Amino acid sequence: MADAAVRSKKPATSKRTPAGGAPTAPHTAAEASEARIDLDRVTDMLLGTWADTRREAREMIKDPAFWRVDGLSMDEHRERVLSQMHLLVDNGGVHRAFPAEYGGAADNGANIAGFTELVAADPSLQIKAGVQWGLFGSAVLQLGTKEHHDKWLPGIMSLEIPGAFAMTETGHGSDVAAIGTTATYDAATEEFVIHTPFRGAWKDYLGNAALHGIAATVFAQLITDGVNHGVHCFYVPLRDENGDFLPGIGGQDDGLKGGLNGIDNGRLHFDHVRVPRTNLLNKYGDVAPDGTYSSHISSPGRRFFTMLGTLVQGRVSLDGAASWASAIALDIAITYANQRRQFDSGAGSDEVVLLDYGKHQRRLLTRLATTYASIFAHDEFLQKFDAVFSGQADTDEDREDLETLAAALKPLSTWHALDTLQEAREACGGAGFLFENRLVGLRSDLDIYVTFEGDNNVLLQLVGKRLLSDFGKQFKGKDAKALAAYALGHTAGKVFHGAGLRQLGQTVTDFGSTARAIERGLRADQQHELLAGRVQQMVTDVATRLRPASGLSPADAAALFNANQSELIEAARAHGELLQWEAFTDAVNAVEHAGTKHVLTWLRDLFGLGLIEKHLAWYLINGRLSSQRAGAVSSYIDRLCLRLRPHAQDLVDAFGYAPEHLRAPIASGAEQARQDEARDYYRVLAESGGAPISEKVANKR
Amino acid sequence: MADAAVRSKKPATSKRTPAGGAPTAPHTAAEASEARIDLDRVTDMLLGTWADTRREAREMIKDPAFWRVDGLSMDEHRERVLSQMHLLVDNGGVHRAFPAEYGGAADNGANIAGFTELVAADPSLQIKAGVQWGLFGSAVLQLGTKEHHDKWLPGIMSLEIPGAFAMTETGHGSDVAAIGTTATYDAATEEFVIHTPFRGAWKDYLGNAALHGIAATVFAQLITDGVNHGVHCFYVPLRDENGDFLPGIGGQDDGLKGGLNGIDNGRLHFDHVRVPRTNLLNKYGDVAPDGTYSSHISSPGRRFFTMLGTLVQGRVSLDGAASWASAIALDIAITYANQRRQFDSGAGSDEVVLLDYGKHQRRLLTRLATTYASIFAHDEFLQKFDAVFSGQADTDEDREDLETLAAALKPLSTWHALDTLQEAREACGGAGFLFENRLVGLRSDLDIYVTFEGDNNVLLQLVGKRLLSDFGKQFKGKDAKALAAYALGHTAGKVFHGAGLRQLGQTVTDFGSTARAIERGLRADQQHELLAGRVQQMVTDVATRLRPASGLSPADAAALFNANQSELIEAARAHGELLQWEAFTDAVNAVEHAGTKHVLTWLRDLFGLGLIEKHLAWYLINGRLSSQRAGAVSSYIDRLCLRLRPHAQDLVDAFGYAPEHLRAPIASGAEQARQDEARDYYRVLAESGGAPISEKVANKR
Repeated sequence: MADAAVRSKKPATSKRTPAGGAPTAPHTAAEASEARIDLDRVTDMLLGTWADTRREAREMIKDPAFWRVDGLSMDEHRERVLSQMHLLVDNGGVHRAFPAEYGGAADNGANIAGFTELVAADPSLQIKAGVQWGLFGSAVLQLGTKEHHDKWLPGIMSLEIPGAFAMTETGHGSDVAAIGTTATYDAATEEFVIHTPFRGAWKDYLGNAALHGIAATVFAQLITDGVNHGVHCFYVPLRDENGDFLPGIGGQDDGLKGGLNGIDNGRLHFDHVRVPRTNLLNKYGDVAPDGTYSSHISSPGRRFFTMLGTLVQGRVSLDGAASWASAIALDIAITYANQRRQFDSGAGSDEVVLLDYGKHQRRLLTRLATTYASIFAHDEFLQKFDAVFSGQADTDEDREDLETLAAALKPLSTWHALDTLQEAREACGGAGFLFENRLVGLRSDLDIYVTFEGDNNVLLQLVGKRLLSDFGKQFKGKDAKALAAYALGHTAGKVFHGAGLRQLGQTVTDFGSTARAIERGLRADQQHELLAGRVQQMVTDVATRLRPASGLSPADAAALFNANQSELIEAARAHGELLQWEAFTDAVNAVEHAGTKHVLTWLRDLFGLGLIEKHLAWYLINGRLSSQRAGAVSSYIDRLCLRLRPHAQDLVDAFGYAPEHLRAPIASGAEQARQDEARDYYRVLAESGGAPISEKVANKR
Repeated sequence: MADAAVRSKKPATSKRTPAGGAPTAPHTAAEASEARIDLDRVTDMLLGTWADTRREAREMIKDPAFWRVDGLSMDEHRERVLSQMHLLVDNGGVHRAFPAEYGGAADNGANIAGFTELVAADPSLQIKAGVQWGLFGSAVLQLGTKEHHDKWLPGIMSLEIPGAFAMTETGHGSDVAAIGTTATYDAATEEFVIHTPFRGAWKDYLGNAALHGIAATVFAQLITDGVNHGVHCFYVPLRDENGDFLPGIGGQDDGLKGGLNGIDNGRLHFDHVRVPRTNLLNKYGDVAPDGTYSSHISSPGRRFFTMLGTLVQGRVSLDGAASWASAIALDIAITYANQRRQFDSGAGSDEVVLLDYGKHQRRLLTRLATTYASIFAHDEFLQKFDAVFSGQADTDEDREDLETLAAALKPLSTWHALDTLQEAREACGGAGFLFENRLVGLRSDLDIYVTFEGDNNVLLQLVGKRLLSDFGKQFKGKDAKALAAYALGHTAGKVFHGAGLRQLGQTVTDFGSTARAIERGLRADQQHELLAGRVQQMVTDVATRLRPASGLSPADAAALFNANQSELIEAARAHGELLQWEAFTDAVNAVEHAGTKHVLTWLRDLFGLGLIEKHLAWYLINGRLSSQRAGAVSSYIDRLCLRLRPHAQDLVDAFGYAPEHLRAPIASGAEQARQDEARDYYRVLAESGGAPISEKVANKR
């Protein structure tokens, strides 16, 4: 089976177009009357701004040395990934983000683009590389100053200094501000004393901590002169040349995980470990030899968020890797669904190709649409990230926008990846459960993406708070009456039993209308209005309900906020979905080729309507859709699936993956060969006259 | 950490009730003013009809010899599970289903109850035992006759004959009728010739096939005298005493899978392998020495379904195991959420216990309600199964009902288990991703439950077809007009813009009403009406749309069916949900203890309203709920979560699991100990006067 894995999807013995037996739609775009997509152009669109870097990275990982080998023990897998890290260094694949004076390319966008492609090789490699150069290295680069750069960046870049990023603690994950580790300044010796005061303050889940890390960037509460200045980052050596912990340092292996077992995650604790004063990465806050604290950011809160903000690239790369992992899943499942047959249609013809089933189209094509949206949104996100980190557009507001974008998109794309990998696995049945077909392995590895670099729900809550604060700014200086009037205006639909004036008009117009007419009422502009209107109203609703909080006791205010937490998170999700929809639409609008524009518009519509269908109850309750139009959404989606079905293979081929990236025997053309062989067998048997007749036929004679 | 895993949830140093900082609700039922559940009584209810057997099985698997050991290689895990199988035999844990004359207990219900409990030990053991005694052994017992029983049952029961159940083929999974393997009768030698005509007809994914099986029950097309009598089952020896394949037999290891790696799944193929005529398991169809075929079931279709129907117990045990795996997941996640703190509430007090967050309650308590529903429904399912297989109620109709019940419940409980294990994993953050905390391992192992023993979507489609056929029976002999009138009556709501008369009245009543009044409108009777009405209308709608099919060409009729496939599957799902709701309600109604009844009624309401919320758009579009009442559903759910929150620990404790079953360090009380230690540290520090002050406070001075 191993050699089959890297074959072309279409075996030489077979055409992609099977004969006969298609009750629902043409199988390929070539058979359909409509124009088809310009495949290369769509690949260019998907690869995005840093297409060249992505192509380079994909070329590099065609080498099997970079591939995950299934069935390795944890220890073997860890060693393999470490050796792949060195291979990355040798291939010049890790320097793009670092400054030119250290041999880097100072190209932040390209750096993330290249890294995210590693997910196709082995997610453990992607994440371990992310730990070394994206977190540990970035902390030194972004939080440190020249002295630190000169001293440590070369070794970090070359992997002479493998390091851990020691932020998370057993007791505190997403709430970094509350970590327990302390770094107390001792002016007598000009040292910081790094200390773990209790078990919950052990650093935990740190890549490179269990085995390979010889240093760490440790986050701790900086205390000097009896004042806690909040969380700062310190460079702390961990192990000696024999790999043994230095005095005062201890740790524990996190052991086997649900995935990413090529990474040696572990725990660390510090018993009054002393490091020189200058090991404080002091770009945003410093301590003078006499113990005086200084920072050019006076607000401790803003300082904290600025420091953490420099580490946003973790979220950028998870967003990209998750989006492309979804693409791999659909490339495998849709290719298989285009070849695999099961059950005859009842039409007396051949067995039906899976992708001809209405339910199967629903399962895979809707997720294909979301994957396109996610990839397009990721490229915009990456552009924003690059603009901020290159200094091209780096105001406080830009940084805040970037943070919000990261917090909105990373949850959506990582949850989508898990959902898509699982649906693809189920759509491939038992074959999907075999490790060789990639889906279960990728799903296990990506599982943790939804809670690391910020728990998805916590991130969405951050987005929700930002939306509330932007909403509040509209009313700065205005009194409560203005807010009340505004809120009333936006919830008018609700007051009138979910049937506001505008919606009543819609009902009248739709009554007796044809499906086509309803479709006209669900095109791009209307989709945007529905999606954007939902965000706006949800935020308004939550803000209105939270307004009394200012007059309440802290405990009651907290309870009020808590009662609205779920809906605030939903509003944030709606905001992220809108961003994805807009990115998809921008991409479609930029297309000139007619066939491409046609097909991608359907796919974008499928994405937009899929969102509207998901939230249909909200639209109805809030009087934004008549029940007639709402009832038409699902059948419109079914029709879009039928229209897109002939283009499905083109749309996954456009991801641009080679057999060396997919490596799934079921997507290699092997299934088509099996189907052809079986059909040939029955045909030859029938022609020979020696085929047994069925009992039913025999009984009739 | 290993010893912590089997500690009590509540460490001696701590109470379950933490002091202070609870902005939303009492933490425990003891603190709340309401009566609490009678814990032992609820455990009895959950353990159900075969509670004693379940208790026996749970006692047996307290022995670590039965536990899954994480991190074993595939080969080691396979060997361990094989040795556990022998241990099961030694402990008398596998004989319950077999006839008394072979040393069995002839107790089908108890047999499944006992087996499903093995999921807490290692799902690989549960499934491998299921393969040996539930599938391979059952095929011999249910499809064979006395000669077969005498010859093979003793060895199967004692595990002297480990065997494979060779039904599925690479090319055909759920569509068993279409398998390619042939068994052609040769009257000259009085033998069947078992043959694999092409690659797609290899048997695949068979437990015990890669290594341990020395025989198999092989399903093949029975051909005699040039007539194919359809799929029958044959007993075929596979391997000699050295473990080598017998002549003509070949195979392949399926290799690493996404889970269940303690089972040696593999492929088998046959090159004109001859077995004696009497190796046909001939209960439902036989071939005389001269080649004459006979069966007491004349219809080949009914014969096929009767034979397959005897194997329903696979689905019964998956349903049970999945339901109880969900219970384990929630026991772990809710215990942790009751101890773990993260972020302060903004109320200036302590950090908030996770389960006090509105979103966290939503995530876990709704799934707790579904798990109760699933367990109660499983017990009714098991009773039905037992009645049929004991012969107590074994008509054709009973068997058909049992099949439908299996096809409706197994999809719901297995998908629910994956959803719950994942949500529990995410709710436990990074700790949830560690293998030692059980959630990722259980999820990997249960992944395949949703597509084996019948792909969930295919099963639901079967249910849908049964619903359609029952619907059709109402109109037997009546003409199309009657159907049309009926359909119109049932969709009247739709015709009047989603606002039929009854619903208009509802709107008027609800307008200006309080939350309490709306709650009264969403109690048990109304929940039932809404859930049952939805099934009825969905079936009617699909039937009405399919009606023109009889006048169409086969291809057009197939296309029409295909266009309605998604909705038919949804109708079947709605039917399964209704069955679960009814089972939950029956259980609640049987309770006498007031506190228990109170709390379980809330939980049942949470389940019912959760279903209604999930399908809210449907209720609105179809005019079954006013938008006002619909709008109230979500906030009612939030209130129910708040009410249930103090009872959450009781409700998971009632599952009756001991530390030896949960084995998750995070649910062992270790987290509470860590939280207590951290709080003590800060308290002592504050009392010492040596605590650093915050920069904010310092700046104010």
